[in-house]
Amino acid sequence: MPIATAELHCFLSDLLGNGGVIDAPSEFPRYTNDWAGDKRGDPWMVARPSTTEQVAEIVTFCHRHQIPMVAQGGHSGLVGGAQPDPEHRELLISLERLNKIRAIDPINFSMSVDSGCILQNVKDAAEETDCYFPLALGAQGSCQIGGNVSTNAGGLNVLRYGMMRQLVLGLEVVLPDGRIWNGMQALHKDNRGYDLKQLFIGAEGTLGIVTGAMLKLVPRPQTSRTALIAVPDIGSVLALYAQARRSCCDLLSAFELIPRVCMELAFEAAPDLPDPLGDAHPIYVLLEVSASGPVDIDAMIEHLFETGAEKGHVLDGVLASSETQAAQLWQIRESMLEGQQMRGEHLRTDISLPISALTAFCEAAHQAMLQRSPETQVLMYGHIGDGNLHFNLLPPATLGLEAKKALLHELEEVLFELVDTHHGSISAEHGIGRVKQAPYLAGLSLVEHELLEGIKRLIDPGEIMNAGRILPRHA
Amino acid sequence: MPIATAELHCFLSDLLGNGGVIDAPSEFPRYTNDWAGDKRGDPWMVARPSTTEQVAEIVTFCHRHQIPMVAQGGHSGLVGGAQPDPEHRELLISLERLNKIRAIDPINFSMSVDSGCILQNVKDAAEETDCYFPLALGAQGSCQIGGNVSTNAGGLNVLRYGMMRQLVLGLEVVLPDGRIWNGMQALHKDNRGYDLKQLFIGAEGTLGIVTGAMLKLVPRPQTSRTALIAVPDIGSVLALYAQARRSCCDLLSAFELIPRVCMELAFEAAPDLPDPLGDAHPIYVLLEVSASGPVDIDAMIEHLFETGAEKGHVLDGVLASSETQAAQLWQIRESMLEGQQMRGEHLRTDISLPISALTAFCEAAHQAMLQRSPETQVLMYGHIGDGNLHFNLLPPATLGLEAKKALLHELEEVLFELVDTHHGSISAEHGIGRVKQAPYLAGLSLVEHELLEGIKRLIDPGEIMNAGRILPRHA
Repeated sequence: MPIATAELHCFLSDLLGNGGVIDAPSEFPRYTNDWAGDKRGDPWMVARPSTTEQVAEIVTFCHRHQIPMVAQGGHSGLVGGAQPDPEHRELLISLERLNKIRAIDPINFSMSVDSGCILQNVKDAAEETDCYFPLALGAQGSCQIGGNVSTNAGGLNVLRYGMMRQLVLGLEVVLPDGRIWNGMQALHKDNRGYDLKQLFIGAEGTLGIVTGAMLKLVPRPQTSRTALIAVPDIGSVLALYAQARRSCCDLLSAFELIPRVCMELAFEAAPDLPDPLGDAHPIYVLLEVSASGPVDIDAMIEHLFETGAEKGHVLDGVLASSETQAAQLWQIRESMLEGQQMRGEHLRTDISLPISALTAFCEAAHQAMLQRSPETQVLMYGHIGDGNLHFNLLPPATLGLEAKKALLHELEEVLFELVDTHHGSISAEHGIGRVKQAPYLAGLSLVEHELLEGIKRLIDPGEIMNAGRILPRHA
Repeated sequence: MPIATAELHCFLSDLLGNGGVIDAPSEFPRYTNDWAGDKRGDPWMVARPSTTEQVAEIVTFCHRHQIPMVAQGGHSGLVGGAQPDPEHRELLISLERLNKIRAIDPINFSMSVDSGCILQNVKDAAEETDCYFPLALGAQGSCQIGGNVSTNAGGLNVLRYGMMRQLVLGLEVVLPDGRIWNGMQALHKDNRGYDLKQLFIGAEGTLGIVTGAMLKLVPRPQTSRTALIAVPDIGSVLALYAQARRSCCDLLSAFELIPRVCMELAFEAAPDLPDPLGDAHPIYVLLEVSASGPVDIDAMIEHLFETGAEKGHVLDGVLASSETQAAQLWQIRESMLEGQQMRGEHLRTDISLPISALTAFCEAAHQAMLQRSPETQVLMYGHIGDGNLHFNLLPPATLGLEAKKALLHELEEVLFELVDTHHGSISAEHGIGRVKQAPYLAGLSLVEHELLEGIKRLIDPGEIMNAGRILPRHA
């Protein structure tokens, strides 16, 4: 039965007290505007629970009154999944006050946290016990664990430690009917029945609100070395990757592709950054090897340089000799994103391919872009060790905004078709949300679509939980 | 609509040809009898498809006629999940002829296989490309990939490489209505929508028949060293474990607990095996470190010995100096299982606990067993680096068979209660099947039970696929 705004406000104020509910539109922007300042819609109200039980009471209330909800963590997603719906009056449930580290168990290499904990705080707390929580993202100073779980976050260390899915031992979830599912096991092995937590990981909040997570820790790396290597072409990048995993004893924690054009964007954004190898080269690989025990990483990387050079895969390279130099190398990776942003309207993608298909795909994609728009600039970088590319496009600066948008939309369609032809994914780590929904649904088989709809219907038959994300809303 | 035996036989013979269908009861034992020779029931018939399409046609036929099915791989499970139901006439679908390695892609570190491939064959094929498929089980010479997927198999290398779930990039599944779900991606990162393959991994065939898998490979280890270390008590085992993960750069591929009593069982079964440390010690740890690059493993293990000895966690130890000696150390691990088997009726369990709870749990469990049956012998060994114990019990030899069974049943209940108190799992790697169903259901929360039933009902509403395993049959 529908209720009035006053009634909802009254319920939330009673439950959450002062500061627990926000209904002044002037305070909405921090919940509605994304990193670029764009918004979709305003929420009905913002609820800020600080315990799992409060989340459960809010959801129970919403379930009873069929109030649509959107759960929000650090609000750093890139597919519009956590932004309120402009067409349905959603209650925004922010997890920002549900932010306690519950317990750290360094003997079990596990840690239980509230879902509103900021990733950086979790990483810091783990390190205090000589452990390490390996998830590493650009947004780690603001993104929250619940969001990391709900989007199955990736980032820089996937190669070594896996996506968020591999780092979760247990979950606590408030279901769309308000009941709490307690799956907070701290077990490294548990084969009892269907593994329910897998349903909620990566479900973008459409099946329930994650309120707690039992995270898997690893020993804290004691040494870490960063190198930048210049290579002639994509084929050499792949050969170097296969060699690096072996030469570096599978201790590679990052293997990033940075073409020269992206490095130059970094210099535009940060003019003081030194060009690390002096001469310009077509492609660079930024790699990191880290170890928690007595291993001679320098010798490993030097061996990789040498064998790579012998085979013609390495043109030049530098092994950072200090933390400052390593930070400068990583600064290139960050600044090139700023440089890209400074150029205005552009297309960002987040695709993945089988690593063995990358050479053919890159060639085909460059060709296709060149053919359709010779002046569009391709910026192709990413976590190439995972087969994950950000194949981004800068349209010709001479075009007007609307013409740029139209061109980018057209090029995106061409690109996604090529991704499909090469058996890739149009969303390697960012998820679907709303931004990727149309091409996602277009590529879905009937049987898969039915299974997905069935799961959503089973768990959230009233479509009140992040409805319209991943799958379209029916009502 | 029910059909006659002749009609089913006719359909299967037409589809599968000679050798594709077995209906002579004299040929049933290889499909019905478990490793100990025990059986539950006979199948209606055995179908032996050799392509995914044949599996789909069989399942479509069964779906139309509501014929219950049981899928069977290498038949080495330990919870009775793949044995035909004695009370319902099930069509047994053996995947043994669906056994082609489809493709190996060493650049992408992936491999696609039919589900009937034997694990050892998959491992061998991977090694031919200088890659490695890390799943390692006692049964690897007979178990099949489809069974490994459906039971989320664990084994010896979980510590380093994870359970089967972590080793699967994609799946192909025939659903209970006969449709094929093709999820054979070879992507290391893919965040498109709900991750459906997670539903089928560990579902014990109750949601569909796995017909193909895209497996994740890693670089082949070039060096591997095995050591046996004597320690005074469980507390020291855990301290040594925390130290070993750090000293050995997280390259530990096995960390097994073997108490003296189990080592003596190994000597009973294999009297020629040398006692590796000369003197007897209360507890041993068998560990393996393996590396695919230039790492001085010996130095790592020696450093671990030294620091462990200084802190009083290590009493003695031996680092295998040859492959023969390493094989002898692993022989202890195998022979102790035979020795246990030779003692006749006993209770085998497969529990897991948070590693930090192991000391308290072991003390409580030993006490509880001693109190109820002072002459029952506890055999507690296992993959302690994963918190996974096989806490097994040998009843007093003087008891008759029925008295032994009754005692073991009573002790199991006590043990499982303690597992629960210590937040553990009654099935770390073996699954639920039928053998663990009663205690599993007893420990399930209402909300979890409803979610599980909902998923089963969604995907197999007619309860024709491995019905009665994990969840009870309704009809």
